[in-house]
Amino acid sequence: MSELLQVNEANDLLQKAQLAKTAAATMAKTTTAEKNEALQLISAQLLEEQAFILAENEKDVAAGRAGGMSESLIDRLKLDAGRLDDMAEALIQLTELDDPVGEVLEQWERPNGLAMSKIRVPLGVIGMIYEARPNVTVDASSLCLKTGNAVVLRGSSTAIHSNKALVQVIHHALQKSDLPEEAVQLIEDTRRETAAQMFKLNSHLDVLIPRGGAKLIQTVVQNASVPVLETGAGNCHVYIDETADADMAVSIALNAKTQRPSVCNSCESILVHQEWAKDHLGKLVEALKQHEVQIHGDEAVQQYGEVIPAGEEDWGTEYLGLEVAIKVVDSVGEAIAHINLYGTKHSEAIVSETLESVDQFFMEVDAAAVYHNASTRFTDGFEFGFGAEIGISTQKLHARGPMGLPALTSTKYLIQGNGQVK
Amino acid sequence: MSELLQVNEANDLLQKAQLAKTAAATMAKTTTAEKNEALQLISAQLLEEQAFILAENEKDVAAGRAGGMSESLIDRLKLDAGRLDDMAEALIQLTELDDPVGEVLEQWERPNGLAMSKIRVPLGVIGMIYEARPNVTVDASSLCLKTGNAVVLRGSSTAIHSNKALVQVIHHALQKSDLPEEAVQLIEDTRRETAAQMFKLNSHLDVLIPRGGAKLIQTVVQNASVPVLETGAGNCHVYIDETADADMAVSIALNAKTQRPSVCNSCESILVHQEWAKDHLGKLVEALKQHEVQIHGDEAVQQYGEVIPAGEEDWGTEYLGLEVAIKVVDSVGEAIAHINLYGTKHSEAIVSETLESVDQFFMEVDAAAVYHNASTRFTDGFEFGFGAEIGISTQKLHARGPMGLPALTSTKYLIQGNGQVK
Repeated sequence: MSELLQVNEANDLLQKAQLAKTAAATMAKTTTAEKNEALQLISAQLLEEQAFILAENEKDVAAGRAGGMSESLIDRLKLDAGRLDDMAEALIQLTELDDPVGEVLEQWERPNGLAMSKIRVPLGVIGMIYEARPNVTVDASSLCLKTGNAVVLRGSSTAIHSNKALVQVIHHALQKSDLPEEAVQLIEDTRRETAAQMFKLNSHLDVLIPRGGAKLIQTVVQNASVPVLETGAGNCHVYIDETADADMAVSIALNAKTQRPSVCNSCESILVHQEWAKDHLGKLVEALKQHEVQIHGDEAVQQYGEVIPAGEEDWGTEYLGLEVAIKVVDSVGEAIAHINLYGTKHSEAIVSETLESVDQFFMEVDAAAVYHNASTRFTDGFEFGFGAEIGISTQKLHARGPMGLPALTSTKYLIQGNGQVK
Repeated sequence: MSELLQVNEANDLLQKAQLAKTAAATMAKTTTAEKNEALQLISAQLLEEQAFILAENEKDVAAGRAGGMSESLIDRLKLDAGRLDDMAEALIQLTELDDPVGEVLEQWERPNGLAMSKIRVPLGVIGMIYEARPNVTVDASSLCLKTGNAVVLRGSSTAIHSNKALVQVIHHALQKSDLPEEAVQLIEDTRRETAAQMFKLNSHLDVLIPRGGAKLIQTVVQNASVPVLETGAGNCHVYIDETADADMAVSIALNAKTQRPSVCNSCESILVHQEWAKDHLGKLVEALKQHEVQIHGDEAVQQYGEVIPAGEEDWGTEYLGLEVAIKVVDSVGEAIAHINLYGTKHSEAIVSETLESVDQFFMEVDAAAVYHNASTRFTDGFEFGFGAEIGISTQKLHARGPMGLPALTSTKYLIQGNGQVK
């Protein structure tokens, strides 16, 4: 009985993945106008069926509370009229962005007369694996549809009522549109084995995108044979160089640490040049303390008051809260070496007035985004001006840093001949 | 004892990967001139130490013969003066190609004054896993060095003497250069367990590139957590449309099948529109037979003489030899559906004089390279004009189709501010 159940549920994944694959072929042919109309219809449908969505979401919230879910997770899970308005508005904004599909990236002719062109095409079928944030259901679906892809969604069991309701609403909207309803599939079986099957479904999925905590992402990266777009972990640093303007350095470090400490582009360690430290480290420590930041520091930092001694493990820690590690270094070279050893290649900043230091930092720091005299908090698709964000890639293949719509596309070479043979 | 051995050999992999990682940081800073000088030195060193290389290679060839290796594999394994000349010449040609590293891909300014730029950077450390083709040792090393990367090579045990000799020669050349000798590492332990460790070495390797047969590639794709650049399998089709010029269609099909049947961009199935078939299929079959091609055909094809009945398995077979499957279809739509079902998304061609059919084929066929009135045999970095080729990607992430030097690079955002905080 249990085996039969497994077979049926595996079939459910396979069947839905097959429907998505078939829909992807249709999606690749749809026009920008058809895609934008569908996004508008989804936007309107979300508002029209608001009561239904909120009622279903309330079931998840109630179950979460009953199960002892923390208030911060409840906050991520919970929908309300305002959040649905935001989702609906984001869909309208998405219609205003350029459609990357069909863009001619390169054109050239070969000596033998072959006319070559390289164009953008959809990726195909995108597998999204995410945690208990129902907004990802709408967000991921709309970004995939805009880029001509089909999507197979696999959310958390703790958000299953919300996700089913949202996908049902999306389907209602797609039924009124020229896009295939089957382009958005929700895997309702939230067991781990089913996710594990998704990891290996190379026959049906062109890419997997995990969205969530470091543990989820690493599980996908470690176990998937389907190519993964890795997003997430950010152990970001602000390095304050010898010549840094003191006010600017404090302002940037403070902003990078405290403006929204729970996100991946916030600062986790501050590295301070020993010369700058002599005159200004006290001021920096004071400013952080005023913002209730707990400080882990090396010996040089500990003379500035109440500082927890920092050890090896602090340099590699993403606190994701009001805590920071501070280390005094003797050169930009030492700062770079520290960052390349402990960083996660996400976002790194130098505050300096010395061009040579900046050049060296820009050249040698291995990260997706490297800043001079600005906060690491700007690493974000919207701040970069992309108008949308799939996530922030921390890997080096395909896309690195904030991913806009083009990250959900591939390319294809089209070659026009007149009988050429080799 | 055996466990101790494993630990030591695992350490050998880790130590070499660590050396490569350290060297990669240096490589990222080297200039184009330094890299080109190193390639010239390697070219000269290959010729200078030719006798040593050939003697070591002879050991592998003798062991291969003694072990019953097929003559075609021996041919791939064997080096001679001519092949070393070709390698040395390829290195010189590589110096003439543009260096993609440092290229500014995009520049823009944000309303808050942040000056953004996106530049090309090396990937870092590239793991190459390949079969008994010693030329890959030099080819892969030189492409990685040209693009500012370090490389960890893991070749076949059957080519170990050749690979050790070639890497030793490369090291001799690098010692005379400004590049770090450690940028090229050869894993001499050719056991499967060591390859399996490489598959999971995300801490040290930025990408894995398997080069070889379908089985090797699938083993890497299925088991690696390090991102993989998948290359290889090509079940390519030529579709002859109703309006195809008869002579051109026969010429293209014949070329795509017979010019070099062992390679991935050769044609494995020919699809023929039923109307074209009525007048011309006999001629096509005759031409293929004159080139000693064995034909597997559906019923409609079997009336044209000695044809092996084709079944389901033929549509999915890469013959990689003088065999072809032929199927008669009733429309371009049926041809596209067949290709998207059985193809490997490599190279697909339509021969037609009907613009609508070509447009539909270009739009709907899901493949890296789609041809109109030309042979599939042109899918190749040199034929595309890239001047070099790492392989032909059959996946959709990062790079698709023939991969030139830019496929061995990633990107980095550099952001100039003047104190911006969020």
